[in-house]
Amino acid sequence: MAIRVSVIGASGYGGAEAIRLLAGHPHVRLVHVTAETRQGQRLADLYPNLRGFVDLETEAADAAAIGRDSDLAIVSLPSGKSMALVPDLLERGVRVIDVGADFRLRDPALYPAWYDFTHIAPRYLAEAVYGLTELYRDRIRTARLVADPGCYPAAALLALVPLLRAGVCGQHIIVDAKSGISGAGRGGAGGGHPFAEASDDVRAYSVPRHAHTAEIEQELAAAGGGETRVTFVPHLVPMARGILVTAYAPLVRPLDPGAAAALYRDAYAREPFVRALLGETLPQTKATMGSNFCDVAVRIDPRAQWAVAIAALDNLGKGAAGQAVQNLNVMCGFPEETGLRVPGLYP
Amino acid sequence: MAIRVSVIGASGYGGAEAIRLLAGHPHVRLVHVTAETRQGQRLADLYPNLRGFVDLETEAADAAAIGRDSDLAIVSLPSGKSMALVPDLLERGVRVIDVGADFRLRDPALYPAWYDFTHIAPRYLAEAVYGLTELYRDRIRTARLVADPGCYPAAALLALVPLLRAGVCGQHIIVDAKSGISGAGRGGAGGGHPFAEASDDVRAYSVPRHAHTAEIEQELAAAGGGETRVTFVPHLVPMARGILVTAYAPLVRPLDPGAAAALYRDAYAREPFVRALLGETLPQTKATMGSNFCDVAVRIDPRAQWAVAIAALDNLGKGAAGQAVQNLNVMCGFPEETGLRVPGLYP
Amino acid sequence: MAIRVSVIGASGYGGAEAIRLLAGHPHVRLVHVTAETRQGQRLADLYPNLRGFVDLETEAADAAAIGRDSDLAIVSLPSGKSMALVPDLLERGVRVIDVGADFRLRDPALYPAWYDFTHIAPRYLAEAVYGLTELYRDRIRTARLVADPGCYPAAALLALVPLLRAGVCGQHIIVDAKSGISGAGRGGAGGGHPFAEASDDVRAYSVPRHAHTAEIEQELAAAGGGETRVTFVPHLVPMARGILVTAYAPLVRPLDPGAAAALYRDAYAREPFVRALLGETLPQTKATMGSNFCDVAVRIDPRAQWAVAIAALDNLGKGAAGQAVQNLNVMCGFPEETGLRVPGLYP
Amino acid sequence: MAIRVSVIGASGYGGAEAIRLLAGHPHVRLVHVTAETRQGQRLADLYPNLRGFVDLETEAADAAAIGRDSDLAIVSLPSGKSMALVPDLLERGVRVIDVGADFRLRDPALYPAWYDFTHIAPRYLAEAVYGLTELYRDRIRTARLVADPGCYPAAALLALVPLLRAGVCGQHIIVDAKSGISGAGRGGAGGGHPFAEASDDVRAYSVPRHAHTAEIEQELAAAGGGETRVTFVPHLVPMARGILVTAYAPLVRPLDPGAAAALYRDAYAREPFVRALLGETLPQTKATMGSNFCDVAVRIDPRAQWAVAIAALDNLGKGAAGQAVQNLNVMCGFPEETGLRVPGLYP
Repeated sequence: MAIRVSVIGASGYGGAEAIRLLAGHPHVRLVHVTAETRQGQRLADLYPNLRGFVDLETEAADAAAIGRDSDLAIVSLPSGKSMALVPDLLERGVRVIDVGADFRLRDPALYPAWYDFTHIAPRYLAEAVYGLTELYRDRIRTARLVADPGCYPAAALLALVPLLRAGVCGQHIIVDAKSGISGAGRGGAGGGHPFAEASDDVRAYSVPRHAHTAEIEQELAAAGGGETRVTFVPHLVPMARGILVTAYAPLVRPLDPGAAAALYRDAYAREPFVRALLGETLPQTKATMGSNFCDVAVRIDPRAQWAVAIAALDNLGKGAAGQAVQNLNVMCGFPEETGLRVPGLYP
Repeated sequence: MAIRVSVIGASGYGGAEAIRLLAGHPHVRLVHVTAETRQGQRLADLYPNLRGFVDLETEAADAAAIGRDSDLAIVSLPSGKSMALVPDLLERGVRVIDVGADFRLRDPALYPAWYDFTHIAPRYLAEAVYGLTELYRDRIRTARLVADPGCYPAAALLALVPLLRAGVCGQHIIVDAKSGISGAGRGGAGGGHPFAEASDDVRAYSVPRHAHTAEIEQELAAAGGGETRVTFVPHLVPMARGILVTAYAPLVRPLDPGAAAALYRDAYAREPFVRALLGETLPQTKATMGSNFCDVAVRIDPRAQWAVAIAALDNLGKGAAGQAVQNLNVMCGFPEETGLRVPGLYP
Repeated sequence: MAIRVSVIGASGYGGAEAIRLLAGHPHVRLVHVTAETRQGQRLADLYPNLRGFVDLETEAADAAAIGRDSDLAIVSLPSGKSMALVPDLLERGVRVIDVGADFRLRDPALYPAWYDFTHIAPRYLAEAVYGLTELYRDRIRTARLVADPGCYPAAALLALVPLLRAGVCGQHIIVDAKSGISGAGRGGAGGGHPFAEASDDVRAYSVPRHAHTAEIEQELAAAGGGETRVTFVPHLVPMARGILVTAYAPLVRPLDPGAAAALYRDAYAREPFVRALLGETLPQTKATMGSNFCDVAVRIDPRAQWAVAIAALDNLGKGAAGQAVQNLNVMCGFPEETGLRVPGLYP
Repeated sequence: MAIRVSVIGASGYGGAEAIRLLAGHPHVRLVHVTAETRQGQRLADLYPNLRGFVDLETEAADAAAIGRDSDLAIVSLPSGKSMALVPDLLERGVRVIDVGADFRLRDPALYPAWYDFTHIAPRYLAEAVYGLTELYRDRIRTARLVADPGCYPAAALLALVPLLRAGVCGQHIIVDAKSGISGAGRGGAGGGHPFAEASDDVRAYSVPRHAHTAEIEQELAAAGGGETRVTFVPHLVPMARGILVTAYAPLVRPLDPGAAAALYRDAYAREPFVRALLGETLPQTKATMGSNFCDVAVRIDPRAQWAVAIAALDNLGKGAAGQAVQNLNVMCGFPEETGLRVPGLYP
C-alpha cells in the first residue's frame, strides 16, 4: 500500500528532484504538486526529464486539499515561506518534511539575526527534528515535522561530526564550500546565473554572513557538547550539481592520520548513504552526481595540527531531495534505501 | 532467479555504464568484469560512483572462465577487438550483446571500406541481429548475438525511420550530430580530450568519412526499402554525455507538419523508451541525461520541402549501455523496462 | 588624433565587447555609452573585466547629445529598436555601425516576414552597406550606415561564399549552426539560459524559421548571382562564446578536394581575419575565442557529391563587436587590424 | 629595437601563453621555441590560436644556440627540469625568467622536503629574485635570474601580503584555492584530466602536502617578518583557466572592515595589475580571464576575529605567462604594461 505524498514548491530544483525520486518510489503515490508562480503547467513541461513519468499539473498550495489527500508533504519553499503553511498542514494531520530553512534552527532569535525575518510559528521549532538522518534517525521515525538540513550544512556536518564527537577540535572551525549553480535556485535574484557569466567562473558570496552558518554551529555544538564558532564561505563553481566542503578544524590534542580515519570508518560503517574513504582517494562531487551519497575523508596537517575534513555530495540529492526521501522512508517504516539506492553518474 | 552476466571491457565508459545499470538490475548477477589494460583494479577505484555497489576487480578476458560462469556477456571493446572474442563466447554457449561495431554491418566488405580491417569472423555477421530494439525487437528475443547500434546511428535512426518507412524521403540525407566528450572514449588517441582544450570548444571530426555512415545507410535502407546515401558529420561539444542529431531529409512528396508529427506519434506510441515530442518543445540532451530515453521531434521546412528530424539521447544510455540492458531484458524475457525506467537528471 | 565613438546598447554582451575592444584602440575616444534598462550604472560594475579601463556610466540614448559629441556610433540593440534611432543619428552627421538586424535586409518586405515588424525607415535600407568586410570592403570605406552581419550569417557566409562565387553549388543549402550561450543575449526571453539548465545540454531552436535565414539567403544570392534557398537550424551548446557553422551544399559539377581547398585559399589569402585551413585540421571555436578571426575549411563528400564547408568564429568577436571595430577601421582609414590583431585564448 | 627572446617549454600551456603574449609585444622578437617531446612541430599546429602569428617550429633545447641568439629566455619546464638548463643559459649571458619552481625557494633544503629532488645548482638560489613584481620590483629590474611565483602563491600572496605587512595576523593561515584545469598542465600524470571526468566535478588534491606551501610560507614570512605556517589545500574546478584563492587568517588585534579595506587600497593603489575591490563586489575569476590582472578583496568575520582575503587571477596570465612578461618589461626597462594591458573576456 502506498502513502499519499504532496510536493509543495514543485517548480524549483529541489521540489522537482523530489518528484523525480518519488516517481520511482514503489510505496509512494504523488497527489498534489504546487507552485506559487507557475500554476497550471504540466510538470513535464517544466522538467522535460519527467515526460512519461508524471502527468500532474502544478496547482496553488491549498492546505485544505493537501490536508485531505495527503499523508505526508515535502515542502520546498524559499526561506520564510514555509512557516506560514507548515503548521496548517500539521494540524490537518499531514506529516511534513520541510526542505527549507524555516524549522531548522531551534532558537527563534536566530531567524531575525541570520534570515532577516521574525518567526511566526516559533512553538513548532521545539517540535521539529533536524533531518540529517545520520544524526537524528531515531527521532525522525516518529517525528511529525522534520526540518531537513541545508545543502551546505549537510556536507559540513557529515565532514565534521566524527571529529567533534571525538572531542579533538578547538572551538573555531572554517568551512570553505564549493557549490554547483543549481544550489542558487531556478530563479535567483538578479535574474539567476546565466550560463555565459557563470561558466569559467568561480566566486565567493555572502562573506562572512551566509545564513547556513547558524545551522552548522547549532549542530556542531550538539555533536560536540560545546559552543563552536564557524567561519563559513560558500563559493559558486561552474557545474550544475554538487557540493564539496573543505572544513578546517584545529586539533586540541594530537591525532594521527590512522586514528582520524578510524573515527570516520566507525562513524559511518553502518550508514547506507555515507561512504568514508579510508585510502588515498579524496571525495569528488562527480562520484555522487544524481545520487543520495555523501563521500567523506579526513586528512591531518601535522605541521599545523589542524584537521582537514572533506565531504562531497549532490546538493539536490543528499543535500535536498534525496535526504527528504531518506527521511520519508524512516518516518514511514520503509527500508531506508527504498527508491534511493542508485549510483551516481560517472562520467 | 538471476542470470549471470559478464562485462568485457569494463574500464571504458560504455562498459562501466553497463555495470552501473546492472548493479541495480533485480535479475542480474555480475560475474566477471574484464579490462585489457587496467587488470587487477577494483572497479570502484576506476569508477568511484560504484563504491558500495560492486566489489569486483578487473580481470583479463578469459573466454573459458567467462564461458563457464556466464549466461550472457556484454562486450564493449574498441572496433576490431570483439570479433576475436565473441565467436569463442558464442560457441561456449554464452549469449552476447556486443556494444561495439564488429557485428553491426551485414556486408563484410564494408569493414575494410569503413573500418580499415578485414573481418575475421564474417559468418557471424549473418547471424547477428542489429540491436536497436525498436527496429528488431522480435528477432532480438531469440538472438544469440545482438550487435548494438553505435551511439550516433541509434539517434539518427530513431530520428529518421518514421520518415523512411512512410516513403516520403529522397535518397540523400544529411545527418549532423553533436556529441558529448564521453563519446570519444576514456583514453582516446592523442591523449584523450583534456578539459582545458575541449571546454568552450565545438569542432567537427572525421569529415566526411566517419565509420558510422555505413551503419546508418544500412539501416535506413532496411527501413525504407531502397538505397539511401548519407552525409554524416559528427561534432564534439563540451558536455560529458549526450547526443543531439539533426537530420535533414528532402521530401519527395508534400508533407505537412501535422502529418509528419503523426508519423512519429504512431511509430513510438507503444515504445517505452522513445518519447515523440508532438508540441512546440524540441528535444534537448539534458532531458535524457543518465536515462535510456530518446526524445524525437520533426519539423518541415515548407520553403525547401525538406524535413528536419531531431533526436536527443544519452550516448552512454540509449546510445550504448542502456540499449544493451534493454536488449538483455528482451533476450531474457524480463519486462523491457526492468532496471531502466529512471528519469534523466534535470538540471 | 582620435575619433569620438559612442556605443548604444552598452549593457548587452555585444555592446560591452565593443567597449572592451575600443578600450584598447589607439585612435578611439569613447564618449557616450547608453543602456535602456540599466542607466546610471558604472560600466565596470556591469562588466568587471572593464575595471581600470572605462570610467563611464550608462546613460539613456539621447540622440542630440550623441550627435553633438560623436563622430561614429556603434549601435547594438535588439531587433526593431535601432531603426527608430539610427536615422536621427545619421541626420546629425554621425556615421553608424549597426550591430543589430534592422538595416541588414535590403527588401523591406522581409522584415514583417521574418522579424514580425514593419520597417519604419525603409529608405535607409538602400543606403546601408552590409558589413561583412570581406564582401563589401570598398563600399564600407565611404558608407554612412553599415549594417553588420548577424553572428550566424557571418560564419555561414565566410564558409560558403567561395563555393557560391565559383558557381559549383545547387540552389538549396543546409546551414547547421552551433552557438555558445552568449549568442542568446544577456537577458533572453524566459529568464535567460540559467547555467544549471544550459550545461550538459544541446538543443536546436527556431526550427525552421530563424530570422537569420533571410540574411544568409540575401548574401548567398549576391555572391552567387542567383536565388538560393537555405534551411537554417541554429543550436545552443554549453560554452560562453563561439559559433561553429557546418554548411552542406550540393555540387552541380564535380569538385575535387584540392580544387575546393584552392577556392578558399584564393578567396582569403589576403584577408587579415579569415584563416583558410588547407591541411587536415578542421576549424574549432576555441582557436578563435576572444579574437576577430574566422577559421574556415571545406570538405567534399565524394559519394554524395556534396560539399561540407565549416567556419568557426567568436560570436562576440568576428560575429559582432570585432566585426564592428574592423568596419570602424575601414570607415576611418585606420589600418584594418588596428586594435584587433590579438590571438584567441587557447586553452 | 627589439630584444631577442626564446621560450623554453613551448608546448605546455604556460609556454604557449607566453608566446601568445609575446606575439603582440612591440619590443620582442621571438627566436627559439623549444619542446622536449614534440619537436619539429609548427607551433600553430599545437596551438591553433597562433595561426598567422608565429611561424616557428619547436626545437630541442640547445643552450649554445639559445645563448647565441637570445637576450632573454622564458623557461617553462616541469619541476626539476630547469635547474639543469638555467645555469648554462645564465653563463652564456642570457637573462632568465623561470616560470617553474626550481629557483623559487631560497633554502635548498626545502627542495628534497617538498619537491622530492635535491637541487643541483643551489648557488643560484641566492641570486634568484622572486618574481612577484609587486613585492620585488626593484630587484627584478637588474636581476639576471627571476624565479616567477607559482600560480597558487601569486594569488595567495597578493591576497595576504597587505595583512601580513600590517602585522595583524597570527602565525597559522589557511589557504583554500580553486583552480581551473589548465593549471594541471597539458599532459598530467594518468593521462591528464579528460573532459568527461573533470566536468561537473570539484575535488581537492595533494592534501596537505602541495609543494606550493613552502613558497607561500617563505614569502609570507618575508612580508610579515616572522614565521608563518600555512595549511594549503588546492582544488580543481571545471573551467579552463582561473584561480580563486580564499585565505583565512586569524587576527591578533581588532581590525574593522574599513581599516582592512584601506590596507588593500594603499597596497595596490599604484599597481597596474592588481585591482583592490573596495565595495560590495567580490573577486571572480571570469573578470580576469585572458588578462594579467589580479582582483583582491578582504572581509572580516567579526564573530571569529578572522580575516578572509580573496584573490582571483588567470593562472596562465598573472599566475604564469602574464607575470613573466610583466617581469620582462621591468627587466628590460619597457613600460611595465607593454603588451599586457588588455581586459579579460567577459562573458
